[in-house]
Amino acid sequence: MLGETGLYVTLDEHPDHVKRNLQSYDWDIDGMEKKGKMLFIDASGLRRTGGESDRLSPYGGSVTDVSGFTELLKTINKVVEGENVRRIALDPVTSLMLRYVEELKKRRATVAFFDALADSGCTSLITSELKTSLMDRRFQLEEFLSHGVVLLHTLFHEGNVVRAVQIEKMRGISHDTQIRPYQFGVTGIEVFPRDKVF
Amino acid sequence: MLGETGLYVTLDEHPDHVKRNLQSYDWDIDGMEKKGKMLFIDASGLRRTGGESDRLSPYGGSVTDVSGFTELLKTINKVVEGENVRRIALDPVTSLMLRYVEELKKRRATVAFFDALADSGCTSLITSELKTSLMDRRFQLEEFLSHGVVLLHTLFHEGNVVRAVQIEKMRGISHDTQIRPYQFGVTGIEVFPRDKVF
Amino acid sequence: MLGETGLYVTLDEHPDHVKRNLQSYDWDIDGMEKKGKMLFIDASGLRRTGGESDRLSPYGGSVTDVSGFTELLKTINKVVEGENVRRIALDPVTSLMLRYVEELKKRRATVAFFDALADSGCTSLITSELKTSLMDRRFQLEEFLSHGVVLLHTLFHEGNVVRAVQIEKMRGISHDTQIRPYQFGVTGIEVFPRDKVF
Amino acid sequence: MLGETGLYVTLDEHPDHVKRNLQSYDWDIDGMEKKGKMLFIDASGLRRTGGESDRLSPYGGSVTDVSGFTELLKTINKVVEGENVRRIALDPVTSLMLRYVEELKKRRATVAFFDALADSGCTSLITSELKTSLMDRRFQLEEFLSHGVVLLHTLFHEGNVVRAVQIEKMRGISHDTQIRPYQFGVTGIEVFPRDKVF
Amino acid sequence: MLGETGLYVTLDEHPDHVKRNLQSYDWDIDGMEKKGKMLFIDASGLRRTGGESDRLSPYGGSVTDVSGFTELLKTINKVVEGENVRRIALDPVTSLMLRYVEELKKRRATVAFFDALADSGCTSLITSELKTSLMDRRFQLEEFLSHGVVLLHTLFHEGNVVRAVQIEKMRGISHDTQIRPYQFGVTGIEVFPRDKVF
Amino acid sequence: MLGETGLYVTLDEHPDHVKRNLQSYDWDIDGMEKKGKMLFIDASGLRRTGGESDRLSPYGGSVTDVSGFTELLKTINKVVEGENVRRIALDPVTSLMLRYVEELKKRRATVAFFDALADSGCTSLITSELKTSLMDRRFQLEEFLSHGVVLLHTLFHEGNVVRAVQIEKMRGISHDTQIRPYQFGVTGIEVFPRDKVF
Repeated sequence: MLGETGLYVTLDEHPDHVKRNLQSYDWDIDGMEKKGKMLFIDASGLRRTGGESDRLSPYGGSVTDVSGFTELLKTINKVVEGENVRRIALDPVTSLMLRYVEELKKRRATVAFFDALADSGCTSLITSELKTSLMDRRFQLEEFLSHGVVLLHTLFHEGNVVRAVQIEKMRGISHDTQIRPYQFGVTGIEVFPRDKVF
Repeated sequence: MLGETGLYVTLDEHPDHVKRNLQSYDWDIDGMEKKGKMLFIDASGLRRTGGESDRLSPYGGSVTDVSGFTELLKTINKVVEGENVRRIALDPVTSLMLRYVEELKKRRATVAFFDALADSGCTSLITSELKTSLMDRRFQLEEFLSHGVVLLHTLFHEGNVVRAVQIEKMRGISHDTQIRPYQFGVTGIEVFPRDKVF
Repeated sequence: MLGETGLYVTLDEHPDHVKRNLQSYDWDIDGMEKKGKMLFIDASGLRRTGGESDRLSPYGGSVTDVSGFTELLKTINKVVEGENVRRIALDPVTSLMLRYVEELKKRRATVAFFDALADSGCTSLITSELKTSLMDRRFQLEEFLSHGVVLLHTLFHEGNVVRAVQIEKMRGISHDTQIRPYQFGVTGIEVFPRDKVF
Repeated sequence: MLGETGLYVTLDEHPDHVKRNLQSYDWDIDGMEKKGKMLFIDASGLRRTGGESDRLSPYGGSVTDVSGFTELLKTINKVVEGENVRRIALDPVTSLMLRYVEELKKRRATVAFFDALADSGCTSLITSELKTSLMDRRFQLEEFLSHGVVLLHTLFHEGNVVRAVQIEKMRGISHDTQIRPYQFGVTGIEVFPRDKVF
Repeated sequence: MLGETGLYVTLDEHPDHVKRNLQSYDWDIDGMEKKGKMLFIDASGLRRTGGESDRLSPYGGSVTDVSGFTELLKTINKVVEGENVRRIALDPVTSLMLRYVEELKKRRATVAFFDALADSGCTSLITSELKTSLMDRRFQLEEFLSHGVVLLHTLFHEGNVVRAVQIEKMRGISHDTQIRPYQFGVTGIEVFPRDKVF
Repeated sequence: MLGETGLYVTLDEHPDHVKRNLQSYDWDIDGMEKKGKMLFIDASGLRRTGGESDRLSPYGGSVTDVSGFTELLKTINKVVEGENVRRIALDPVTSLMLRYVEELKKRRATVAFFDALADSGCTSLITSELKTSLMDRRFQLEEFLSHGVVLLHTLFHEGNVVRAVQIEKMRGISHDTQIRPYQFGVTGIEVFPRDKVF
């Protein structure tokens, strides 16, 4: 696990912004990048184009959708094979899904994307932005398509905001089903596995 | 019941993945498969195609919907008759329903599918992914079409997550109407039939 | 009342299934059927066809909607007149309403159906499947069209599931307005008219 | 007030049914009708036709909408003028509004209907069927168009069902703003003006 | 402030009805009207016509929308300039917004209307009918376009109905942010600025 | 930070109104404007035009959308470069988003707008009007596109209104995650960083 090559696909920001945001953690991203153990693909341009029609674009420049989407999958596959990548982080899939308004197109693109990542043989970690209450969760296609789902909650209880983590599914692995408080520390997300949220 | 031949139709994953996920249980799936008592149909390819139009497909390959859907029913029937199958597990019907966006088409395909399973004479166990709160349940066609409905809840109460099971309907059989806590054990789902959820 | 001829119209299941499901009750359905006091109409085939267009059918066979719907009304009327039926049970009207997606068509068919039952001069008991919370009831056309509405609730209170019955309306008859617990017993639904639900 | 002529327009049921339902009250409807002080218009036929298109009708007979609607207004006006009617009861306006699915048409017909009643110079009492919770009331055009709104609630509190009445608006008249329990008695609705609902 | 000329634009009722409804208050509306300090515009006719198409009108008479709408703005401007009006009351803007079903048209007409009132240089008081719970407020264009928003609530708490007022925004003016009980008295709305609602 | 040139883009009101509204604070806006340290762009005209079609405009004058939108971006860029602007306040982005009804167009214009501000190299502060409850937050594109999100809440708790501030995200900066009470004072928003909201 340590020592394996990882690929970070940024869909919202330029990799330089991502790296700068991660500087508050005790991770040697630069060192890993220099050793070729950490690779970045900048896919933030995809967000600026819509997946359904180029005629709707309110401003000049245009990247055709299918090629952009297909190209991203091809680029990921090429990097994975050429650099022996074993882990992929994709952040956030929300950018990709925002390209589509029509339900069926969004659904097919999402299925195609998750299938492509699964076919790559890598372990993929995908982030998705949700804004729903703990008690009113709805069906989310990206959760349905994943083998594991970890939820990061922002709970509000008796005047306090509590950040909590919950493993909702993790196929084939027995795991803690409770919801646990966490905080951001210099080593990353610190979970308090014996504490209750309130 | 024990000794009867069962058929597992996987709609989301390849049967190999399903078997691997089941390894944490004390079930001799491999042994049953070798004796011909446990059969698998891989229908995970259906998820990748949409039921309404092939023109919408965002990537090359295409399986025509009607043939795919009809073919699945034919394959199930052939295996059921040829192998004297008495029990069918279908997991999850959600994959099938995601193929349709138009309400009427989805409804007809679902009715056709449940009728075909009923006509097979087998006892079928069908899983469906829901994300609704306990207090805000809506009409679900797949529940309406089933003779029995068992709900697996993830409840959140005073800072604790509780997994609970509820038999919502079981036609012609008197049953416990309470909601009961459960956990995953090595023998499968372990229900605590005398405990309350909180 | 006892001694009057009754008609059971099954819209979801074959009458044989319905009779089998009723075997846990102390009712002599077979005896009544032999004496011609209990009649059955199997209308479960209607569910398989949609009310709006035959072109949408995802599988071969097709029963045209209008004829199917009109035919059911005609058959009911013929049996009512020929056999001097005084009571009709129709179970469930949900199957009929699922035939329609377009709001206006569903509404008109429902009005036509309730009017036809009212015109028959019989007392009709119609079941409908709802999934709504006690506090978030919406307008339901079938309730509006009925002279009486009896609700069967599944309440969840402090970790317990409670089955409760409520008479929401019963035109021209003064009745208990409270919500009361009930259970299924060998004589049918047993209501506890002096108990509170919690 | 007593002694003035009243008109009861029935939109859901035949007047005979309405009179039968009112027999549990100590009101001499028959006497008043014989003296010409109580008149009935049977407009229950309007419910069976839709306001938007005759082509959609799932069964034979058809009453054209505009004429049906206009005819009702004309009949009401003729009776009001010819019989010196001062009070109109219209029960329920829901039947009229169900004729329309398209929002703008429903809105215009409703405005036209309320304006016609206002122009008649009579005091009109209109019933409308709502199913909303006390805390989640939405904008209702028929309430907006009325000078006074009286709500009949069915509240559920700690296991009890409580029927309560609330005057939500009564233009130009100062009134009790509290919500009060009521019951049906032989003289009509009996309000307990000093009691709280719970 | 006292002594300035005011204009009351009635969009729902005839000015005579409005004046009659205000008689329970100790205001000398008639005196002010005679001195030319209080003016009325009857725009209740606008409600009867729809803003989108005349073909939809279910009854004869028709006022074309654009002219009706533009005419109202012109009339208001003419009266404001000719009579030196400094204050405008417009009651209720809901009537105007009900003319539109299509979202964009309603939005543009509302913006145009609020801009015209702002351009008149007068201080305008606009009423709007809302039916939303205190905890589930949504974005309302008319509130967004106003410099100040005062909400009149009908709260339900432990069996009591409480009428309360809340200043939600008042640009450039520091104000009480609490929610306060009020009642209708002979001098108008009486707020209890030191009381809590419960 | 102090001493850097700022640009205030007003989308809802004329800059003069904005300055007048800010007079209750101890800020020397006029002085800063005279020294060229505070610049204003009046973009309130954009709100009056819709982004989708000029044919819908209910009144005469018309500014074509694309040019208006593109022109705003060009003007901002010109001022930023010519005056060495380092900070931009844009108030409120809601006006811009109201120009669009069609989901995809609104989404693309919003992405284009946020990208243009990011490309300017300035730190931008953008206000947006939301009306959602604390417990029922939904996905908001403008929050997703921002590096930091600060929420101003109006909470209602036990009869009291409490204004509270919450930092929901601030990329790359560790911050207080609690929700804190605030009030408007002469120096601006005063947060009580050690207090709880209740």
